[in-house]
Amino acid sequence: MLIIMQPQASEANIENVVSFIEKQGFTAHISKGEVQTVIGCVGGKTIDKRNIELLAGVREVVKITSSYKLASRTFKPDDTVLEVKDAKFGGRYAGIIAGPCTIESEAQMEEAAEKLAAIGVKTIRGGAFKPRTSPYSFQGMGEDGLKIIKKVADKYGLAVISEVMEIAQIPLMEKYVDILQVGARNMQNFNLLKELGQINKPVLIKRGLSATIEEWLMSAEYVLSGGNEQVMLCERGIRTFEPMTRNTLDLSAIPVVKKLSHLPVIVDPSHATGLRDKVAPMSKAAIAAGCDGLEIEVHPHPECAICDGAQSLTPDDFDKLYSDINKIAEIVGKELK
Amino acid sequence: MLIIMQPQASEANIENVVSFIEKQGFTAHISKGEVQTVIGCVGGKTIDKRNIELLAGVREVVKITSSYKLASRTFKPDDTVLEVKDAKFGGRYAGIIAGPCTIESEAQMEEAAEKLAAIGVKTIRGGAFKPRTSPYSFQGMGEDGLKIIKKVADKYGLAVISEVMEIAQIPLMEKYVDILQVGARNMQNFNLLKELGQINKPVLIKRGLSATIEEWLMSAEYVLSGGNEQVMLCERGIRTFEPMTRNTLDLSAIPVVKKLSHLPVIVDPSHATGLRDKVAPMSKAAIAAGCDGLEIEVHPHPECAICDGAQSLTPDDFDKLYSDINKIAEIVGKELK
Amino acid sequence: MLIIMQPQASEANIENVVSFIEKQGFTAHISKGEVQTVIGCVGGKTIDKRNIELLAGVREVVKITSSYKLASRTFKPDDTVLEVKDAKFGGRYAGIIAGPCTIESEAQMEEAAEKLAAIGVKTIRGGAFKPRTSPYSFQGMGEDGLKIIKKVADKYGLAVISEVMEIAQIPLMEKYVDILQVGARNMQNFNLLKELGQINKPVLIKRGLSATIEEWLMSAEYVLSGGNEQVMLCERGIRTFEPMTRNTLDLSAIPVVKKLSHLPVIVDPSHATGLRDKVAPMSKAAIAAGCDGLEIEVHPHPECAICDGAQSLTPDDFDKLYSDINKIAEIVGKELK
Amino acid sequence: MLIIMQPQASEANIENVVSFIEKQGFTAHISKGEVQTVIGCVGGKTIDKRNIELLAGVREVVKITSSYKLASRTFKPDDTVLEVKDAKFGGRYAGIIAGPCTIESEAQMEEAAEKLAAIGVKTIRGGAFKPRTSPYSFQGMGEDGLKIIKKVADKYGLAVISEVMEIAQIPLMEKYVDILQVGARNMQNFNLLKELGQINKPVLIKRGLSATIEEWLMSAEYVLSGGNEQVMLCERGIRTFEPMTRNTLDLSAIPVVKKLSHLPVIVDPSHATGLRDKVAPMSKAAIAAGCDGLEIEVHPHPECAICDGAQSLTPDDFDKLYSDINKIAEIVGKELK
Repeated sequence: MLIIMQPQASEANIENVVSFIEKQGFTAHISKGEVQTVIGCVGGKTIDKRNIELLAGVREVVKITSSYKLASRTFKPDDTVLEVKDAKFGGRYAGIIAGPCTIESEAQMEEAAEKLAAIGVKTIRGGAFKPRTSPYSFQGMGEDGLKIIKKVADKYGLAVISEVMEIAQIPLMEKYVDILQVGARNMQNFNLLKELGQINKPVLIKRGLSATIEEWLMSAEYVLSGGNEQVMLCERGIRTFEPMTRNTLDLSAIPVVKKLSHLPVIVDPSHATGLRDKVAPMSKAAIAAGCDGLEIEVHPHPECAICDGAQSLTPDDFDKLYSDINKIAEIVGKELK
Repeated sequence: MLIIMQPQASEANIENVVSFIEKQGFTAHISKGEVQTVIGCVGGKTIDKRNIELLAGVREVVKITSSYKLASRTFKPDDTVLEVKDAKFGGRYAGIIAGPCTIESEAQMEEAAEKLAAIGVKTIRGGAFKPRTSPYSFQGMGEDGLKIIKKVADKYGLAVISEVMEIAQIPLMEKYVDILQVGARNMQNFNLLKELGQINKPVLIKRGLSATIEEWLMSAEYVLSGGNEQVMLCERGIRTFEPMTRNTLDLSAIPVVKKLSHLPVIVDPSHATGLRDKVAPMSKAAIAAGCDGLEIEVHPHPECAICDGAQSLTPDDFDKLYSDINKIAEIVGKELK
Repeated sequence: MLIIMQPQASEANIENVVSFIEKQGFTAHISKGEVQTVIGCVGGKTIDKRNIELLAGVREVVKITSSYKLASRTFKPDDTVLEVKDAKFGGRYAGIIAGPCTIESEAQMEEAAEKLAAIGVKTIRGGAFKPRTSPYSFQGMGEDGLKIIKKVADKYGLAVISEVMEIAQIPLMEKYVDILQVGARNMQNFNLLKELGQINKPVLIKRGLSATIEEWLMSAEYVLSGGNEQVMLCERGIRTFEPMTRNTLDLSAIPVVKKLSHLPVIVDPSHATGLRDKVAPMSKAAIAAGCDGLEIEVHPHPECAICDGAQSLTPDDFDKLYSDINKIAEIVGKELK
Repeated sequence: MLIIMQPQASEANIENVVSFIEKQGFTAHISKGEVQTVIGCVGGKTIDKRNIELLAGVREVVKITSSYKLASRTFKPDDTVLEVKDAKFGGRYAGIIAGPCTIESEAQMEEAAEKLAAIGVKTIRGGAFKPRTSPYSFQGMGEDGLKIIKKVADKYGLAVISEVMEIAQIPLMEKYVDILQVGARNMQNFNLLKELGQINKPVLIKRGLSATIEEWLMSAEYVLSGGNEQVMLCERGIRTFEPMTRNTLDLSAIPVVKKLSHLPVIVDPSHATGLRDKVAPMSKAAIAAGCDGLEIEVHPHPECAICDGAQSLTPDDFDKLYSDINKIAEIVGKELK
């Protein structure tokens, strides 16, 4: 930690700061420049830097160590590659997840799984518990839905991903699901993240609507620090002032995260844009930008979907898209899995 | 719901839209203008308007009814006034909540309660379970903390507010706490909100960092629709591009919400700004703007606080501030409680 | 324009609204629904809809016509293709613009032009007048710079694009430059836009840092309505809460604009991200998303650049990137020009 | 400037950085910590810190001096107080500016001036050149309007403020206007700011819609560095994701700027909220937060206003508001002027 004093800070100000940080267990190294003094702090426990910024004569406090450790490339320079059944995410692989927003019936999931498997998809998605903004909306099929998705996934050799909404659902999820998804609204549900650090299955953490990249990596750190090393991240749009798309898909997060962290980063273009005709261009863009996978909503009959049909592709649309992203992946050195 | 067609929409487009919405149970009223056609829809069930926007020839779909009902002034024109012990929030009252971020010890809370009660405060705050961005930070005293805050509050006749982080904590909270606070990160934890709709104590819902006012009112609707009519809202800053304050306190939300809803709206200037010297000006501003209360962090010894000391006032600072806001409240027709 | 009344609006409220809009020259069509009344307005002059929203009993006013006309696909369904020397932007072409941020010397521009032309670039960029946040920074070479860029461009058969900062510079620009660029900070400099509507050269309008897509199209409308039909748009990042990139590149703006408008949309990944190692992934992503061109900063010696060297590619880096985007363009049905 | 190396940076990395900055004229002071090395840089010219951040082994570069100097409190610890006729802004004065958005006629301005002067206002506003988002809207009365506002202001002893949109208008403005206003869209029109640094009249700089506080102070620096010390700032709302108000009024900018700078900061609640019924609460809040003045739209007949009538108060509304803010100002130690 570096404490940058104001140019007009007095000797008494500097002494007071040094005395304050020494009480917190830090060792101070004073460096007097031509214009102002900088105090380097070594050792000591975690401290809220605003406590120092409020001391007289202090201009700014700069942390020089990351708040996340296990998630950083400094800690683990090589890409983490997650393997789940035939799916692979990270390194030279881009894993493709597809399926409906919500599990509605066995017939729906059977048709989806058959078509997706034929196209080459290795992981199927489907929600059993739905977080809905309105208390008056459909809330999901629950365990019955999980049984259905597992059954059809087993039949076609697919891995299953589904969203876990609270701690109490974890045991159920572990029984039926291969990858547990943490939704954007739960990205900072720290108790849930801590529990997910105790399980032995991959966890996908969606970026919160207004989460910075650093906060997102801190959420990954919660899971990693519990001992579960199988974490991946999913960009799904951030909230901005632009009203024409539901959210603004932040594709530059891909190269930023891949530089800072070894964890796989995938992209969900369906929730980000909220409109079917924007999903294909944004999927191609995400792959071209070097992401480690995609999560795309595909529904056998989007016009009948209970939820988010407007952002779901038909299997035919998806087939065409898959073929395009397969070619783009090759150009950027990735293989679809 | 109104469906506005594009100027170039064909007769076939219009017929297709009408047929689509009639299948969903709506009755269509077609109104052909000079430039374009508008189709009014009456009856029918809830529908995702994007499904209609994707139909050929549709320009825009406009909902003409609110997504929240019980929270709206249309439903209940008169201000809701919440009374908890001697505290009052709403109508002509502005309730003042003060206390430390975190319950640290009985000595700390005893000192805080004594001083706050002497100043005139009627509600004391203090966190027992702390949501922390980093897994390596202090996580709260739990039930021991709740026992302490209840003990000192009873001694000085104060109401108690504390944050509930998950469903499992509700029974514990009900035992010790008068007002249950839902944190900004949990504003869309819909399962938690639904459970809070079943209890018989006031619930304060903080606005999420990137929540629109409409979404915030929808969260209140979750609690109200469960049967619990004791809901109040708390503005605590939204996330913007400005880095000089932790968040941007959106005080214009006060008159906006008070026009749309009958629920009390209070303001937390401490978390919004994150810095002690910004708390007093923003507290005065919030009262001047007509809010129904404040929640302010006050710590007997901020420099020793485990958490958020940098944004805590000393009791002396708070005493001076209380006197100022008392005078401003009078000018805008409010009484502090 | 549709005026949606509140459910509790009285007959007197409705009559008052009708009387108000008839005074403005509109004809009113009243449509009474089960829940509320909707008043359609036809004819009349432009009106600030907030004036109606403030009338008693009004819930919302919805405009049902676009505020831009000439820029819309409704007005011109086919893609506009701009041709400048050998460069083409729009339709099935993606025009590639490259060059240094700032014109520094003839040697610099000669080296840049030679290398870029060899790679296949058809348009060279370079700033002669630099808008700088700090009054203490280098402000550009002015007309001397323009002479240099024209000279080298002529030698290698390239088109020239450069930024015009104010009306007084237009005649100078017309003399030396093929495409006049309007910077993000000038996107709503309406006087400048009006003047650019009078010239006979293509105008590229960068999206303002906090401009909505609708406002961006309105700025294009200013130029188009003056009679200049040669307009193209350039996405260069919007301001969000995320601090790790300079701005957030909004690639979903590409499919959104291309649906609403016939104008070419290109992307500037250099200014959006502000960092060299993010330029290649974002360039590939933009092409994959279907943009009509790129504007990329390339400097023969970025480490010596006066301005924005940190976001400039070397000619070698750019050569490799050009080859990749050439392949991606083919997959999405575009040809680089 | 401090260069913070990554923990894993090699000796060669450090030497390379030192060599790079020495070439730019800096002297390097290396400080090796337990975890990582920090390099302090003294002297040297202005440098784009991203150029250093791109060097191998560098984690972050921290500037330790402000980018603005003349605008900072370090440079001038005492509040700047601007006096224009009877109006005063800054220090213990809050100057109140009121008047219509646009100058429409002499009758309109005469009525406005008479009523405002009677209430106690010392500065009248009115636009002669209007920047309008749409090319099809009214663009202002020009010099005829300036003549009118000067005439009525002289009659009632008021100061005049009006917006200057481009350099060419400055001489005209100097003739008729006491304070030249730079609109939000022109906050980074650096050529205009430089010219305004040459005049001898106060300049009010509105904050750009997406301008950080630091950028706003840099814009003030442009004017100050030209020799014009009469600068004041005006907060008028920033762009956020919230759609219910036109912009989000950032009142916390008041204490933030007043700590960093000696310049007066006033607030425009009319443009920020865009709706008349939000103007009074936000005006009171701004005064309570300690601002140095207000700029409020007041129109004798808002329902007939050509522009922004929806956000204009009537003289009667304003009279009531003035009385309230007068009392609040006293509580926070300010006098209205």
